[in-house]
Order: sequence, then C-alpha cells, then structure tokens
Amino acid sequence: MSGTTKKSIEVCFSPALINYFDIASKNVVIIDILRATSTICTAFARGVKEIIPVATVDEALKYKKSGHIVAGELNGKTLAFADYGNSPLSLMAVELRNKSMIFCTTNGTKAVSAAAQARRLIFGSYLNFSALTAFLEKNNTDTVLLCSGWNNNFSLEDTLFAGALCTKLIIGKKFRLCDDAAMAAMNLWNQAKNNLLCYIKKGTHYKRLIDLGFVDDIKYCHTFDTTDKVPFLQKNAIVCI
Amino acid sequence: MSGTTKKSIEVCFSPALINYFDIASKNVVIIDILRATSTICTAFARGVKEIIPVATVDEALKYKKSGHIVAGELNGKTLAFADYGNSPLSLMAVELRNKSMIFCTTNGTKAVSAAAQARRLIFGSYLNFSALTAFLEKNNTDTVLLCSGWNNNFSLEDTLFAGALCTKLIIGKKFRLCDDAAMAAMNLWNQAKNNLLCYIKKGTHYKRLIDLGFVDDIKYCHTFDTTDKVPFLQKNAIVCI
Repeated sequence: MSGTTKKSIEVCFSPALINYFDIASKNVVIIDILRATSTICTAFARGVKEIIPVATVDEALKYKKSGHIVAGELNGKTLAFADYGNSPLSLMAVELRNKSMIFCTTNGTKAVSAAAQARRLIFGSYLNFSALTAFLEKNNTDTVLLCSGWNNNFSLEDTLFAGALCTKLIIGKKFRLCDDAAMAAMNLWNQAKNNLLCYIKKGTHYKRLIDLGFVDDIKYCHTFDTTDKVPFLQKNAIVCI
Repeated sequence: MSGTTKKSIEVCFSPALINYFDIASKNVVIIDILRATSTICTAFARGVKEIIPVATVDEALKYKKSGHIVAGELNGKTLAFADYGNSPLSLMAVELRNKSMIFCTTNGTKAVSAAAQARRLIFGSYLNFSALTAFLEKNNTDTVLLCSGWNNNFSLEDTLFAGALCTKLIIGKKFRLCDDAAMAAMNLWNQAKNNLLCYIKKGTHYKRLIDLGFVDDIKYCHTFDTTDKVPFLQKNAIVCI
C-alpha cells in the first residue's frame, strides 16, 4: 500500500483545538485515560446497554432527579448526588447489564461535545487497545486522536496513549502520521513504553489522583486489552455493536 | 532555594490555548522558531529600533501605504507588497539601524495578540538563548512559554525550543516545571538535542520551508547565541533596552 493511499492520523492535544481539525469526514477517537474513557470501556465490558454523556453537572442533576443512574465527577471527586464517580474499579461491584447510565466528567464528556461534528466518535483506552486498533483498521477512515487533557490543557497520560495507538496503526501500514502532534506523541510513547507507570508519575493528573486515593485506578487504567468492546457515539448515546 | 519559592514554568502549545493560562501576573515568552521570533532577534541584532507586530495582512498593507518598511509573510510566502518576508537571512543585507519595521507573520504575530494580557511579552529563539535565560532568571517571575505553532496547531520545532529553555531554567534552580506540557517538551528536547537538525526533519513545517527553498534559514534558526538582545513588547512595539 503506497503512502498516498494510507489513511491519515492526526493528534489533537485539547478539546479547545478540535475546531482547527477538519473532522466532518473523519473518525475521532476520544481519549481520557484517567479516567473517563477507561470507565466507559469498563462499563461496556460489564454489560451496560448505553451511556449518555452529559457535559455539565446541571444536566447530570436533571437526569438524576428524573430517576436515572448517574456516574459523575468534578475535578476527580464524585458528584454528591451521583450513584458512582469516575472510578472504573468502583463499577466492578455494580450490576450494569442492560442498563442505561448517565455520565458526566470534568474532561472526557466535554471532549464529546467539542467533537460532535465528527463522522464517528469512538472511545479509546488501554483496556480496549487491540479491539480499537482492529476497528480503526477495518473502518479505514482518516482519524483524529483527541486527547481530553485537563481543563483544555495538554495531559501526559492521554498523549502517551495517543502515541501508543499511532505506533500500532503505523505498524499495521494502513495509516500514516500527518501532523507534528502525532510525531511527538509517538516519540514520547517510545520513551515511556518500557516503564509506563513510572513515566506517568511526572504527570500532574497522576499526582492529583494519587492525592485523592485512586492509585489502583491508575494501574488498572494502564492495563492492555481487558475488553474487546469498542464504544462509539450513536445520536446522543454511547453504545457498542 | 526550596521548591516552593522557585518560580513556575508552564508551556502552552498553541495561541488558541493561552486563555486557559493565568498570564496577567506572568512573563510570556513567544516562540516561533521557524521563523518569526528568529527574525525578530536578527533584526535587533542588526540594530533595528523597534518592530511593530501586526496580526493581519490588511493591517500590514495599511502601514505599507502610509510609507512604512514592512516585513511579512503568509503561509511561508513573502507578502507581495512587503519589502521583506520572514527570512532572518534576508535581513543580513539590509540597513536596519535605528529604523522601525512593521512585521506580519502567519503565526508569530498572532501569538502576540493572543497573549496581550501578559505581565510582559518577551521574544525567544535559539539566537538569543543564553541572553533570554539570563533575563528570565534576573526577572524572577512565573513564566509561560508560548509556542506559536502552525495555524493554532502544535509544532515540533517550537516545542523543542521550549524544552531546551525549560531544561536550562531548571538547571539554574530558580524555576520549577508546573505542567505536563513543560515535562513533555523537556523530554522531547532530551531526545532531539544531540541531533537537532535531523530530528526536526520529521516536522511538517520543516518540510513546508524546505519546499519553499529556505533550507539555510532552518539551519540558521537553530544556531545558539548569535545575539545578546532580548526583545520585549512595550505598548504596541517590540523593543530592546
């Protein structure tokens, strides 16, 4: 396959920059490793029927008042009125099969709103890494990897995942890197990959979650391939086929 | 000096993200290695009195019509009505001593508008690297390094310079890194520093400038310490003390 027929991969480091990408004809992979997209993948692994992402606490509260199950956090802390926070491990003891869940997080669900114009919005994490790669290769479409970041700022752990995914897609030979951000993400991943959990200790969000007591979540969120589910947005809900 | 009394360094990867930084009490270093800030440093090394940055081609044209010297480019190409483009080497044969110059570029001068609220706007490049470092250390203020990028997207060569500057400031022990972007920039610099001109070949803007015939500019713009001038914004003009 020649370079020109390969599909493009770009990396966007903040939801606030997604307007500078031409996403209408492209797949966008939402990445929020700590922890929204890891939690979304976990919920589907545990049989949830659909997840309805909401971008604001007010919206989440409205759903709660009308009787819905709500998972949500603000700045890492569980919303007072929510049934669950944003900890994937906290979902392990919960019966989710065939249920709908409302989901509100500081960064991940905001990225969904920001990239709503994409051809397709897909949710990526280490937990579904191989399934996601296979999905993207089969789908064969120009793709933007959108790092949710932290309050619209660059985040190390999302970038490293983007770098891992770029590397894997390049090896598959169906994709080519198309911007400096993808190149940087891949180079950072190459530095980090042999000692990932140590490397991300440098990150500000790692420190924030450690302070909040979520050390086990951090380790879990950096585990490859615990599920073959590939969640994507269909109308206003996140679903899996 | 303890960690808490050190001044902060943050790195912003795009003018479109500067609003997420609290810059009113901070110094902001504008970085546009290829080529706006390299050209600005060169002009001051050659004795220019002041440079008036303008953010749009229309503004530059208005100044030209009123008799000013105009340097400017759009997407790397010299503006048709301008006296000079954005090539630092093209200024080598020009008499600039005690003159005013209007300057319009695709990315660098837009970064100036975006960060206008900063305590002080300073212009950095490899050409004034050591002088800039000394200035920042003497000034002893929280500092944001603003990469001009390309059309608001992340650029490799600006990020590498930010990483070089972070590294130098950390070694001086008066500053501490405060965000993931600074950490990433420094890690990328560590990968690149021993073979910089080869490393930046991966960048999209490198390729763009090579296609436009500016190979010598690229090499020149990655030369350390050709001048001790540290340009900064004073009202609407860039000046040096």
